[in-house]
Amino acid sequence: MQLTALEKQLDFLREIDRLKTVVRQSPLLDKSRKENSAEHSWHLAMYALLLNEYACGTVNTHRVIQMLLLHDVVEIDVGDFPIHSGSSSELQAEQESRAAARLFGLLPQQQGNELLALWQEFERGETEDAKFAKALDRFQPLLINVFTGGGTWTENSVSLEQVFSRYGPVIKRGAPLLWTVCEQWVTQHFAGQASGMSRQTR
Amino acid sequence: MQLTALEKQLDFLREIDRLKTVVRQSPLLDKSRKENSAEHSWHLAMYALLLNEYACGTVNTHRVIQMLLLHDVVEIDVGDFPIHSGSSSELQAEQESRAAARLFGLLPQQQGNELLALWQEFERGETEDAKFAKALDRFQPLLINVFTGGGTWTENSVSLEQVFSRYGPVIKRGAPLLWTVCEQWVTQHFAGQASGMSRQTR
Repeated sequence: MQLTALEKQLDFLREIDRLKTVVRQSPLLDKSRKENSAEHSWHLAMYALLLNEYACGTVNTHRVIQMLLLHDVVEIDVGDFPIHSGSSSELQAEQESRAAARLFGLLPQQQGNELLALWQEFERGETEDAKFAKALDRFQPLLINVFTGGGTWTENSVSLEQVFSRYGPVIKRGAPLLWTVCEQWVTQHFAGQASGMSRQTR
Repeated sequence: MQLTALEKQLDFLREIDRLKTVVRQSPLLDKSRKENSAEHSWHLAMYALLLNEYACGTVNTHRVIQMLLLHDVVEIDVGDFPIHSGSSSELQAEQESRAAARLFGLLPQQQGNELLALWQEFERGETEDAKFAKALDRFQPLLINVFTGGGTWTENSVSLEQVFSRYGPVIKRGAPLLWTVCEQWVTQHFAGQASGMSRQTR
């Protein structure tokens, strides 16, 4: 009985190896290549471990880390939906729900249900833990874009107003002090771009 | 004051982005490329989350996950020391200690000390949490080798006896039931190799 449970758990752990091959839009900070969703999830868990004092509410860091470790596994079935792609979020939610059911369904029932519930809690973004986790999931790619001189914003011709509206509410809700830092970074980034452009057109 | 702490934390989080460029010997399960240490750390944290019931002692899964998230960050300075390389473990330990001091020294003092202590606890491998974490850190590459038809064992001409001696004690000590499974896998793997070789030489 226990071995059967273990076999299911090992099946799941082998299956999620594929998250290492899901490539995101964000580059590494050294710009050598794009980031994949497995290493992104590792990095976010480290963000949660280091920055939990900036959460808006009282959070359980262990739960936040768990959410961030598994928040992207659905991409194994449906791929990454980039923030600037403008794709239908309803279609995305439906596809991701099916993927979550399939993947967590590989596990022993009780464990699978627990992880599915945690994934759903993250997706809904209503609890303090989920709000903070979602804030970090927006904060990390914003940081990458700022420190790589534009990243996905440059590639997708994203404006300052779009950055504010696409990242601001989620980060501000879960980690207001981090958003204060972001506002400074983003304002400086686009001011630098504008002055760079005006120099080019001189 | 708080902003200065945050600046240090963000420096650290940017610095450890480099773990994504440290390439290990182990392949991905689909053999498309070698695994890097950041995604390896993510996968190990998932192993800890899923398999904590197989720990030999009573473990705190939150601490085990934290250890596994940060156990390899020293490789940013010193690279990965492959298990089958035969390099000096004393030299390795000294270099890794220096790297840990530098990296965790980027953080606010108290937080840096806490994470350094956790890293040292993992390295010493004496507590129940560290024993289980170390067992998983051996179990995951063993699983990869079995399910990729040999992996680093084939590349380094590693024998069944060497697998038993290099992986066995650590896995058995932290997660005895997982070692029982490994013994079956490894025995079958090398039996298959031997029969494959005898077919080739027929």
